[in-house]
Amino acid sequence: MRRYWIEKKDLFADQVNFTGDVFHHIFDVCRQDVGSKFEVLTEDSKAYFVEVTQVTKKNATARVLEERVIPALKTPHVHIALSVSRFPVMDAVMEKAVELGVTSIQPFFSEFSFVRKGDKISENKIDRWDKIVKSATQQSGRGDLMKVLPVISIEKLSVFTNPSDSQVGLFAYEGSSTLSIKDYCAKVKADHPQGIKDIWIIVGSEGGFSHAEVQKFTELGLHPVTLGQQVLRVETACMALVSVLKYDFDLMC
Amino acid sequence: MRRYWIEKKDLFADQVNFTGDVFHHIFDVCRQDVGSKFEVLTEDSKAYFVEVTQVTKKNATARVLEERVIPALKTPHVHIALSVSRFPVMDAVMEKAVELGVTSIQPFFSEFSFVRKGDKISENKIDRWDKIVKSATQQSGRGDLMKVLPVISIEKLSVFTNPSDSQVGLFAYEGSSTLSIKDYCAKVKADHPQGIKDIWIIVGSEGGFSHAEVQKFTELGLHPVTLGQQVLRVETACMALVSVLKYDFDLMC
Repeated sequence: MRRYWIEKKDLFADQVNFTGDVFHHIFDVCRQDVGSKFEVLTEDSKAYFVEVTQVTKKNATARVLEERVIPALKTPHVHIALSVSRFPVMDAVMEKAVELGVTSIQPFFSEFSFVRKGDKISENKIDRWDKIVKSATQQSGRGDLMKVLPVISIEKLSVFTNPSDSQVGLFAYEGSSTLSIKDYCAKVKADHPQGIKDIWIIVGSEGGFSHAEVQKFTELGLHPVTLGQQVLRVETACMALVSVLKYDFDLMC
Repeated sequence: MRRYWIEKKDLFADQVNFTGDVFHHIFDVCRQDVGSKFEVLTEDSKAYFVEVTQVTKKNATARVLEERVIPALKTPHVHIALSVSRFPVMDAVMEKAVELGVTSIQPFFSEFSFVRKGDKISENKIDRWDKIVKSATQQSGRGDLMKVLPVISIEKLSVFTNPSDSQVGLFAYEGSSTLSIKDYCAKVKADHPQGIKDIWIIVGSEGGFSHAEVQKFTELGLHPVTLGQQVLRVETACMALVSVLKYDFDLMC
């Protein structure tokens, strides 16, 4: 079934109004018409099954037939801190992260980032990521919009990723002294018998991390973790790490 | 470090000869030159660290400095049977599957395949998949070429995927009576205390599987498995399933 993301304000009692870009997408691009049935999703984690009742040139209305609550993501929430990579890679990570239930993505600039300065990332790119998130949310039927946080420097990253009683963090690294992801999960559970709320996955861009960055992460209490002997592309590493964490912490259901 | 895939026949004692497409790629495209050092991989799961000694217009030679054995993929081997999907999706699955250590991919035609007949898949596409596999092998440092088997009909699929003492299979399905992937892994281990050699993951194209296909799979002893409530794209489902199986069966190391 098709699903579309709408603003909560466009829902009045049991009626949905479609205007602007949303109208254009649903009625011009997807060619829905009077009598069409589909789901609309709102930011309050609800899905409404609707039937279109009226379509004009610029707007349309639909009647709510059924309403259901989309279960919220379970904890621990998984977050990705991603060193700014080539834009097709960023786009792929955004899309797949929505599907796999990542809570937020924090892009950051590091020594080997594809782009190293904020002013080189145009508003267009950030709008594009928002669009990818919305589109992947519709496609996957997720009940909330994954947050894409404004790009920051690696120095500021620790504000978000610092380990605490309720938060842990790992970084993908192929050097020595790494833990296997399985040993890492076992360690987190042993160290936090009361459970944790948030897990940060820190992934470098194509060049990985510099020696100084690795040292800094380790000093902050973040763990270097490997997924095995093969070198994974940035987007593959992100997706494999998220899948495995979601699996190990029983979040895939 | 850069890695290139070569044919075993181009290696004589401690010297490598580069000609044809391989020469073009390494010396014209990647601009390696006399004195450059990189690894070459061969189909006998060995990697040779070489230094270029001579470059002419059409060929080049390098001297082997070091040789190492690349560990083979551990068992159980993971295989993907993938209903023919849109070609960018097929390409993405091929690339990521190499990185994540999938042993073989068996494309097949099913009711909702993007293309439903063999003669609509050109030789070009099959060549393209071979190139993607080779390129991803070089990039990831894997020691063997993932097999991409010739496309077959869903009826013939059971020859490969039929469960046995040493082989199990699951198919991704969002309907009722599905097992969570975690319960599935537990069941496989309980049912096969002696271990298994091969796991087949069967994934539908964008439309999933028809009711009749699901029934057929179930009759064959294949299990419907879900990865959770969200709808995953074809390539995301493949990658998440492979990651999780590799993790659960201790193959990620």
